[in-house]
Amino acid sequence: MQTVFHLIAGDPDQQKTALTIAENLTQDESVEIDDVAIVAQGDGIEPLKAGGNGSDMVESLLDDGISVKACSNTLDLKDLAESDLVADVETVPSGGGELTRLQSEGYAYIRP
Amino acid sequence: MQTVFHLIAGDPDQQKTALTIAENLTQDESVEIDDVAIVAQGDGIEPLKAGGNGSDMVESLLDDGISVKACSNTLDLKDLAESDLVADVETVPSGGGELTRLQSEGYAYIRP
Amino acid sequence: MQTVFHLIAGDPDQQKTALTIAENLTQDESVEIDDVAIVAQGDGIEPLKAGGNGSDMVESLLDDGISVKACSNTLDLKDLAESDLVADVETVPSGGGELTRLQSEGYAYIRP
Repeated sequence: MQTVFHLIAGDPDQQKTALTIAENLTQDESVEIDDVAIVAQGDGIEPLKAGGNGSDMVESLLDDGISVKACSNTLDLKDLAESDLVADVETVPSGGGELTRLQSEGYAYIRP
Repeated sequence: MQTVFHLIAGDPDQQKTALTIAENLTQDESVEIDDVAIVAQGDGIEPLKAGGNGSDMVESLLDDGISVKACSNTLDLKDLAESDLVADVETVPSGGGELTRLQSEGYAYIRP
Repeated sequence: MQTVFHLIAGDPDQQKTALTIAENLTQDESVEIDDVAIVAQGDGIEPLKAGGNGSDMVESLLDDGISVKACSNTLDLKDLAESDLVADVETVPSGGGELTRLQSEGYAYIRP
């Protein structure tokens, strides 16, 4: 099974809950998880910024093999470059497009 | 691919982000999008009201061919008639029913 | 059709809206609903607590045949035991795992 988490809320506590739920999923032995991805956009981009609030959790998730993707429209809007992001974070043309593509491939969607 | 956006948050900024993400999806050439729908309920109904905050964005999305659907339970609860809504907004018996139906037809779900 | 609702928001009004939407779904005769489940985690656990704010609505939904599931990680984090919950609420290893499993079985996902 595959799961994509949608990170969009601006509240830091809500962001940390979202990242914790993603981490917990990788440790749930009752389900066979083949892939976990995170798509961030809007104010949910904060933990993906190098040195941003929660970026330590994003680094840890990347180390666990979770792919983390930032919406390019959001980067443009917030005047951020890919170099402002945590290393190994990918960019995607649009968050909505990536979330649609992954769900069409069978990923479950979770919006914490 | 097909996508349905769930508009339920009452915060105007969150509503505008949701409508912007829907618009961005139609402009993302990296995914082939066949249909985009918006289902609004609860406090998310505001931009669907004629003259409501954000109604200009809803009008623009309708012009782009996006279907916009209002939950009838919400209209009843808020004492709104279909004539209070932006022209061409449709009504559905329940938001939950429509979101279920569309996902069962293969729509991806995005809740901004 | 089958639907799972994700109860995670901490705001009591938002929780009540979520539970109302679940109830409305069971009464929407325009869609054939075979099963409705609720998965609660994080601050969304409150209405599942015996005597918690909104627990009367959870009891009513259970009476209607809706299954209500609490995330065990959340129970651990909040120092809650299964005996602290409304009778007939089930527990699942992780909210994210259960939401993934149900969607992989064809459940639509709604996050109010």
